[in-house]
Amino acid sequence: MASSTNVSSTSSNPRRIRASVLHGAKDLRIENRSLPAPGPNEVQVSVRATGLCGSDLHYYRHYRNGDIIVREPMSLGHESAGVVVGVGSAVTNFQVGDKVALEVGLPCGECERCGEGRYNICKGMNFRSSAKAFPHAQGTLQDRINHPAAWCHKLPEDVSLDLGALLEPLGVAIHASRRAQLPTGSTVLVFGAGAVGLLVAAMAKISGASTVAIADIDGGRVDFAVKNGFAHTGYTVPMKRGNTVEENLNIAKETAAEVGKVQRASGKPVGEVDAVFECTGVPSCLQAAIFATRPGGRIMLIGMGTPIQTLPISAAALREVDLVGVFRYANTYPTGIEVVSKKGPDYPDFSKLVTHRYRGLEDAEQAFEMAAKTKDDDGNLVIKVVLEMDDEDRARL
Amino acid sequence: MASSTNVSSTSSNPRRIRASVLHGAKDLRIENRSLPAPGPNEVQVSVRATGLCGSDLHYYRHYRNGDIIVREPMSLGHESAGVVVGVGSAVTNFQVGDKVALEVGLPCGECERCGEGRYNICKGMNFRSSAKAFPHAQGTLQDRINHPAAWCHKLPEDVSLDLGALLEPLGVAIHASRRAQLPTGSTVLVFGAGAVGLLVAAMAKISGASTVAIADIDGGRVDFAVKNGFAHTGYTVPMKRGNTVEENLNIAKETAAEVGKVQRASGKPVGEVDAVFECTGVPSCLQAAIFATRPGGRIMLIGMGTPIQTLPISAAALREVDLVGVFRYANTYPTGIEVVSKKGPDYPDFSKLVTHRYRGLEDAEQAFEMAAKTKDDDGNLVIKVVLEMDDEDRARL
Amino acid sequence: MASSTNVSSTSSNPRRIRASVLHGAKDLRIENRSLPAPGPNEVQVSVRATGLCGSDLHYYRHYRNGDIIVREPMSLGHESAGVVVGVGSAVTNFQVGDKVALEVGLPCGECERCGEGRYNICKGMNFRSSAKAFPHAQGTLQDRINHPAAWCHKLPEDVSLDLGALLEPLGVAIHASRRAQLPTGSTVLVFGAGAVGLLVAAMAKISGASTVAIADIDGGRVDFAVKNGFAHTGYTVPMKRGNTVEENLNIAKETAAEVGKVQRASGKPVGEVDAVFECTGVPSCLQAAIFATRPGGRIMLIGMGTPIQTLPISAAALREVDLVGVFRYANTYPTGIEVVSKKGPDYPDFSKLVTHRYRGLEDAEQAFEMAAKTKDDDGNLVIKVVLEMDDEDRARL
Amino acid sequence: MASSTNVSSTSSNPRRIRASVLHGAKDLRIENRSLPAPGPNEVQVSVRATGLCGSDLHYYRHYRNGDIIVREPMSLGHESAGVVVGVGSAVTNFQVGDKVALEVGLPCGECERCGEGRYNICKGMNFRSSAKAFPHAQGTLQDRINHPAAWCHKLPEDVSLDLGALLEPLGVAIHASRRAQLPTGSTVLVFGAGAVGLLVAAMAKISGASTVAIADIDGGRVDFAVKNGFAHTGYTVPMKRGNTVEENLNIAKETAAEVGKVQRASGKPVGEVDAVFECTGVPSCLQAAIFATRPGGRIMLIGMGTPIQTLPISAAALREVDLVGVFRYANTYPTGIEVVSKKGPDYPDFSKLVTHRYRGLEDAEQAFEMAAKTKDDDGNLVIKVVLEMDDEDRARL
Repeated sequence: MASSTNVSSTSSNPRRIRASVLHGAKDLRIENRSLPAPGPNEVQVSVRATGLCGSDLHYYRHYRNGDIIVREPMSLGHESAGVVVGVGSAVTNFQVGDKVALEVGLPCGECERCGEGRYNICKGMNFRSSAKAFPHAQGTLQDRINHPAAWCHKLPEDVSLDLGALLEPLGVAIHASRRAQLPTGSTVLVFGAGAVGLLVAAMAKISGASTVAIADIDGGRVDFAVKNGFAHTGYTVPMKRGNTVEENLNIAKETAAEVGKVQRASGKPVGEVDAVFECTGVPSCLQAAIFATRPGGRIMLIGMGTPIQTLPISAAALREVDLVGVFRYANTYPTGIEVVSKKGPDYPDFSKLVTHRYRGLEDAEQAFEMAAKTKDDDGNLVIKVVLEMDDEDRARL
Repeated sequence: MASSTNVSSTSSNPRRIRASVLHGAKDLRIENRSLPAPGPNEVQVSVRATGLCGSDLHYYRHYRNGDIIVREPMSLGHESAGVVVGVGSAVTNFQVGDKVALEVGLPCGECERCGEGRYNICKGMNFRSSAKAFPHAQGTLQDRINHPAAWCHKLPEDVSLDLGALLEPLGVAIHASRRAQLPTGSTVLVFGAGAVGLLVAAMAKISGASTVAIADIDGGRVDFAVKNGFAHTGYTVPMKRGNTVEENLNIAKETAAEVGKVQRASGKPVGEVDAVFECTGVPSCLQAAIFATRPGGRIMLIGMGTPIQTLPISAAALREVDLVGVFRYANTYPTGIEVVSKKGPDYPDFSKLVTHRYRGLEDAEQAFEMAAKTKDDDGNLVIKVVLEMDDEDRARL
Repeated sequence: MASSTNVSSTSSNPRRIRASVLHGAKDLRIENRSLPAPGPNEVQVSVRATGLCGSDLHYYRHYRNGDIIVREPMSLGHESAGVVVGVGSAVTNFQVGDKVALEVGLPCGECERCGEGRYNICKGMNFRSSAKAFPHAQGTLQDRINHPAAWCHKLPEDVSLDLGALLEPLGVAIHASRRAQLPTGSTVLVFGAGAVGLLVAAMAKISGASTVAIADIDGGRVDFAVKNGFAHTGYTVPMKRGNTVEENLNIAKETAAEVGKVQRASGKPVGEVDAVFECTGVPSCLQAAIFATRPGGRIMLIGMGTPIQTLPISAAALREVDLVGVFRYANTYPTGIEVVSKKGPDYPDFSKLVTHRYRGLEDAEQAFEMAAKTKDDDGNLVIKVVLEMDDEDRARL
Repeated sequence: MASSTNVSSTSSNPRRIRASVLHGAKDLRIENRSLPAPGPNEVQVSVRATGLCGSDLHYYRHYRNGDIIVREPMSLGHESAGVVVGVGSAVTNFQVGDKVALEVGLPCGECERCGEGRYNICKGMNFRSSAKAFPHAQGTLQDRINHPAAWCHKLPEDVSLDLGALLEPLGVAIHASRRAQLPTGSTVLVFGAGAVGLLVAAMAKISGASTVAIADIDGGRVDFAVKNGFAHTGYTVPMKRGNTVEENLNIAKETAAEVGKVQRASGKPVGEVDAVFECTGVPSCLQAAIFATRPGGRIMLIGMGTPIQTLPISAAALREVDLVGVFRYANTYPTGIEVVSKKGPDYPDFSKLVTHRYRGLEDAEQAFEMAAKTKDDDGNLVIKVVLEMDDEDRARL
């Protein structure tokens, strides 16, 4: 119910806010914008934590993301949580002061995909900090945004805003886990131990996979994953590369065979796994994934990478190894909130993924530069960089 | 490959063994039987641990189980593990000395259900210690049995034979979990905190349900479940009973409403749950299950109880709450072996379910008497009674 | 795009229309109402054909429907099609003159069920001519209504408005067919050869069931179904009734056994069928359905009838015969439009279901009286009664 | 039950039969073999009709099939039907004189894939006329074979043996249809109008797809498909080919766009389809399939062709277009028998697929030469070539 506090906190007048706006490759500027009062079904959210994602980084560095070219100045940021500072007249389930995670993609709500609950692949999707739709939906690297209450998710008091921001990439992991339809006791291989790979591994583990192995070319990431309970076991992929398609396929076969030697709980080797979650987008990984998966298993295509790949497609088809796409997420936030709320030994500590924090819009550039690295200057892994913001930003206006 | 050890351990001559044989209600006799050498595709197994099940108990007490009447003397026991003591000529994947769990139901292998992997509902199923087929398939309360190697499951060295015997009821829980198709993060209610209910709760938890509540009229069982990590939370059902159908349905509604107040990880009440696993077979529980399940949820019918029940079927149908049967299990042993092999905090200690152990065929009667109780004379819970046997039994022959 | 025609057809002023309004049991009155111009996202539809449904009939006769009591005067009707006569300012995909079928249930759009595409079981559903929500959503027995464009479905020119109205019950059949997940070549039994049963049978046939048998106590309906291609074969259920639960269950078993004798295409008897679609709500039919279904099969609960039933639930559970609820429909209209658009021998002629037509709001009472019968005075079957309306109604204003 | 006829028809002595045996590329020889009496669980079948398949043709022409090299003389043929001429002692459900279709792949029956009903991808599969296992399982181009009764399927009297032989490729179509999980009313595109493509199209139509379009570079095949009711509509793919990957992808996009213009029953263009069944194995078709499929749709990989392909994999993954393998079939024969038993307008006349018939083992070579063509010398389409055999073959011995 709109409390009297709400009334006082958001006047019906527009408000001046600051936004970090990308004007070209590596050209981030802090600008003033005018933010109207929230519409009847919106809340106004003071953004407090935004994780930087690979797509943000592509835009930052190239002013494009693959085929998608930025056509007007755009704020980045879409992994965000904040605090409600204003409540629209028709909103009844939020109050000023509520901590919320933001689900920043707004689907059309009317197409067949929306109708069947797969709004992540709605063609009319308007997703903050993506330049696909025009005008672009501005990202969350702004002091405040107005956002439909229906796409805000209230956080429990004891869940940090950093974890709230992590719900976005966790959504990808939850969605991947659902599409994988893994029965309990499955064996799983995850390629790529970045933030998404780690979350994907954790979700497979939480979902009852009895052996989750993670593979990466960086042994440090593999160790991180296993030590912190994101995966049961790991494998460091040697850097090898052939000159011909055949040589590379043979290397992929070798990788698959090696990964197959990691042990299950029962001591048996994993062998061909029930599913591979491919989180790198690198062709040799997808090739290895095909060879590593048992007949009838599934490969989840999560990593966005090389768009056109040469693949041993018969080796998949003849063994009914299915290639299953995973794009963003749908209906994952409530599950994600339960997952990050869990205490106790069953669940990994997700906050460990946030390895670097910056504070304030002014530090956005530094944050992006760090997010581009795999290790910081002290040799620590860079997994997830979060830009935190607070009231002082606004006080300065 | 059949090793030379195998040859020495099982002569080609029949062997005299002892069997516990039921001749009538509470009329258990120890008899000598002649056991031939194992057939080409069989192994001979020295039975070492047998859990007593509700159906065994029905046969023991009434010489029948519901509609199924015993027609010839029959050995009981079907939750069993043992040690391989003989290997058929065509068997290559077992050796004398291997620890094995026995999957004691042999389906026809040719019908449509077998073809599609649902052999648990094969009409030609021949299940040890069930009097449904005739001649009855004799149960495992015998010194040794010959069993097809294809239906024996090798146990890792460090999995106890007690746990091996538990794989049978765990199979029911795994099968129920699979049929429930619960996405990660689901809320689950389990009615009944007996052995099956506890295993079912544990499997739901392992499979990623974020809140598993268990309900029983015995508060001690509920406490046991939560304290030992089989469920996240619990609810003790008060013993209430009305005189009319309407009164009882209202009591069921109250129960459902009360259970709905238990908390999730996020602090929110569970509310209507995504699924109920009904492990009691008691009409008031199934009624409460219908009211406790959210629209679009599932009720898993696991408990065998009152065969004809008065149910608020419209309350299920109009909300698309589906009633899903669970009968025994299919293809669950490999998963079960991984599950009981797990070390570490993620999984409950399944061996705690074995609350009472007896030793030797002579103690079968005592074991059945204990299995009929809910608490022993010291007030300890009776959950699973296991009859252990060892080489000395055979030495006495 | 809103054409100039649109502008002229609907002034921004409210318009006087006539509505058929139920004020009590059998108390239908024609009243004038004021209809505002359509909102920005609405269209204004001149209602032209409304099929009368069992729930309408219940309201008409008892001013209630089961537990749901009418609390304010309410127009009936929810199986409707019409012509667009006005277009809201933001509507781009309809024009004045378009023929449309109306999907009259408006879900909340924000709950988890809506999110996953199961809006039919949304708790916030507002469904025209249902008294569940308050204020009641008024039904379609009105000259015109305003309705969200997103819930209107454009009809091809050569699909009649009668068929457009039939899309509503056809939606139930499509939804049932989807939930049944029948593989091609299945055997199906339908209990009840009323409008819904016939549509359900037809959809099973269209969906590839190789044998669809329909059963009813009225041989005339069974003949109608088979002769007109709605089912492959049929069975007339004899009217028998026992005095005890056991007698009735035995009669149900007999019915199941008899139905099992009908032949497949290959000449083999159907035997236990893969699925039963229960469209009567009569306990003896659901009992027979349980006995008639093969292990692992499904029973679709479609008929709304006796809310509390005594059922041989173990006979279902022990054979993993699942009881699956079917409530209304979700996302079925586009499919339905393709189905009724089909020409040629593959599909039955759905328009044959409309056995009786009335014209004008004044005839609503007569139409309801006919809909209450199973045969008219000439002995013809009454299957679907449609009330047609046209411009002259409005001209009289 | 083994009748007295059985006893007389198959003596317990071995019998001399003739077999067509491949000794090298295009080196087919007729040889005498000795066939023992059928084992206890076998029947002896006089092979009467064998369809020639692409894999047979590869072996015939190259003495290999892709990577699989023939290692010993091998009879070809695996699409077969015949007549029971001998019955093993334990066989109760066949009699001499029964018409049977042969399911020629014998899985191990013990692995996890067999356990879950996916025996088509069993690694221990022994498939007649495939050189994958060693010793090779001999094909059906022999006078008689002994075959396990469990893998013989009795044909109704009025189903021809030609149709019986067609059940094998029809099995692929049924399996593909099942894996596609198409809801009724789907739009489907089939690439390739050869025997498998036509059967796949027919099964999609029978299974309730409301629009099935078939595409081929040969307009004659497309016409054949539509005229004979195997598909609703068709599209002749122009022969175009670019020089670069990009040019070819653009051509694939054009093809997809053109196919999208074919009309549904409602008159609307198909647009992006719900599923593509790729039956050619040609990279440009799979590329076009990816572009032709709607977000969330499925591509069924049926055609065996280029094993390593360059694919726009991101265009699939980012739209959650899944690539689903289809290899042979499992549990399809009972369905296939119902399908080919159907009379009446709903189903196409499958016998039209048999465009060329040869008679007797001596004509095998001629039959293979014809099967290698797309048109015969008179310009008629070559779709399925069947080699028929009869008793006279054996009389000549």
